[in-house]
Amino acid sequence: MTINVLFAARQERWDTYERPLKDAFSRAGLTADLRTDFAPAEVDYIVYAPNSDVQDFTPFVRLKAVLNLWAGVEAVVGNKTLTVPLTRMVDHGMTQGMREWVTGHVLRHHLGLDRYLHGQDGTWRPGAPPLAQSRRVTVLGLGELGRACAETLAFLGFDIAGWSRTQKSVAGLLCLSGEDGLQKALERADILVLLLPDTTATRNVLDAKAMAQLPQGAVILNPGRGTLIDDEALLDAVGTGQIAHATLDVFRTEPLPKDHPFWHHPNITVTPHIASETRPETACAVIAENVRRGAAGEALLHVVDRQLGY
Amino acid sequence: MTINVLFAARQERWDTYERPLKDAFSRAGLTADLRTDFAPAEVDYIVYAPNSDVQDFTPFVRLKAVLNLWAGVEAVVGNKTLTVPLTRMVDHGMTQGMREWVTGHVLRHHLGLDRYLHGQDGTWRPGAPPLAQSRRVTVLGLGELGRACAETLAFLGFDIAGWSRTQKSVAGLLCLSGEDGLQKALERADILVLLLPDTTATRNVLDAKAMAQLPQGAVILNPGRGTLIDDEALLDAVGTGQIAHATLDVFRTEPLPKDHPFWHHPNITVTPHIASETRPETACAVIAENVRRGAAGEALLHVVDRQLGY
Repeated sequence: MTINVLFAARQERWDTYERPLKDAFSRAGLTADLRTDFAPAEVDYIVYAPNSDVQDFTPFVRLKAVLNLWAGVEAVVGNKTLTVPLTRMVDHGMTQGMREWVTGHVLRHHLGLDRYLHGQDGTWRPGAPPLAQSRRVTVLGLGELGRACAETLAFLGFDIAGWSRTQKSVAGLLCLSGEDGLQKALERADILVLLLPDTTATRNVLDAKAMAQLPQGAVILNPGRGTLIDDEALLDAVGTGQIAHATLDVFRTEPLPKDHPFWHHPNITVTPHIASETRPETACAVIAENVRRGAAGEALLHVVDRQLGY
Repeated sequence: MTINVLFAARQERWDTYERPLKDAFSRAGLTADLRTDFAPAEVDYIVYAPNSDVQDFTPFVRLKAVLNLWAGVEAVVGNKTLTVPLTRMVDHGMTQGMREWVTGHVLRHHLGLDRYLHGQDGTWRPGAPPLAQSRRVTVLGLGELGRACAETLAFLGFDIAGWSRTQKSVAGLLCLSGEDGLQKALERADILVLLLPDTTATRNVLDAKAMAQLPQGAVILNPGRGTLIDDEALLDAVGTGQIAHATLDVFRTEPLPKDHPFWHHPNITVTPHIASETRPETACAVIAENVRRGAAGEALLHVVDRQLGY
């Protein structure tokens, strides 16, 4: 029986995903009809971008599941018309891209790369940086991405702690949780990496109070969600030197407006939401696997807990 | 019986090493007299820096071994008055520092960090870098340092090849050797890392011909030895764009003279021989272990092959 799959995302996504998705369905042995237009009552699955035109799921009466194209689901998780399972993307390529971005930016600060990259004056200034074992890095969030980054940094020799809402256990990692754990996690963070999901509980988790708990001169990396940081408090803390540098990949408004003070601040680095992108080849295999599971009556992968919001 | 150990290096080294070396001897259970002055005929071991005053080993008639303070031995290996075993330093801290420097500088180029670090103009330019799996990195030299760096980059997902004079085998690594192997190693090197020792066979290994074999726009990292590169050929190749960027940590003359063109070239980054330093705490344990082995009649660690030069 043919499975009808609606692709609900902007046109440029369709250009990118049509071929790899069809290939992935075919490789998974599925007879699927993938299109950008269907009568809602005929749709079995929606491959979904939260910024698509589909915002009312009520007419999709035989819908089995909504398969989000990326990891962040904050723009759809509260949609009350959505009553079937929602899955988020957990993509090897996305995780890998995040490992690379986080490791590169941690090493930039750890090694003090900037002093060599910006115009030098011909003066030989010896002095090696400390070893990674004496640099304390804390990763907030131990989901797929946070865990992969923490494990990579631990492999490189950094002194790592990870914090998550509920207690987790990861080999080689100091795992903290809860409110007390958060304070401990912040107090030891020479470098702080934010990889929490965007939920009501995590909004402004890095506010003025939390920033004051960091060691003086701490570095913040935010490849997670723009809402995790109180932007005004960050500008204040960077101004006083409490935060030596912040490197931000995600923002409350994207693209970041041209006149936003983050762009030109000497101690803030902006990257344009590139830390981690869904990679079509690897992501489509995950979507096909979920459609196959759904059709076979098996449990879906990466189902969002609508209560928790991720 | 007391073992007499002469410390032959500049005064500032003595200031750094006296305490950790004495501690290390004591921890190794050795009765050692460590000093900067001895009658040569009384000396059992020399802890040695090749730039020290000791250049004629003839008067050291009961000398058992010379223990070099760092990895590079090119300035002592040809000394014909030295007839006892010479060991070079293989220090965990040195290897670790090298892993960090090499990984950080590879990621700088892989992620294109510079475009975000230098003043931005407020324009949001999306587009994630490719994944590490599609970035080919070649490490020339698979000794302690080269191997550790290659393994670290492989763990991060890079497409790695390693080249060594004699064929080696390292899990997860394409291992090449010999002249044919060198050409293959160069032709695939989007990023080339030089970690060969300084020997007559490796001098100018990266000359104009070798640079022409690299893919156009390749990046060179040299944390190995300054003599591995033909400096004039490098300036030419960076000028034409054949080499997109070179990051150099070691030079034929150190400190690099103030008026050297490397300092101010926009596509050359100079770091002041900081990629890897001997770390006193970890290095002294290695020296103490070798003195213990020598006293016990056991084989020394890290003995230099005087023929090969390392």
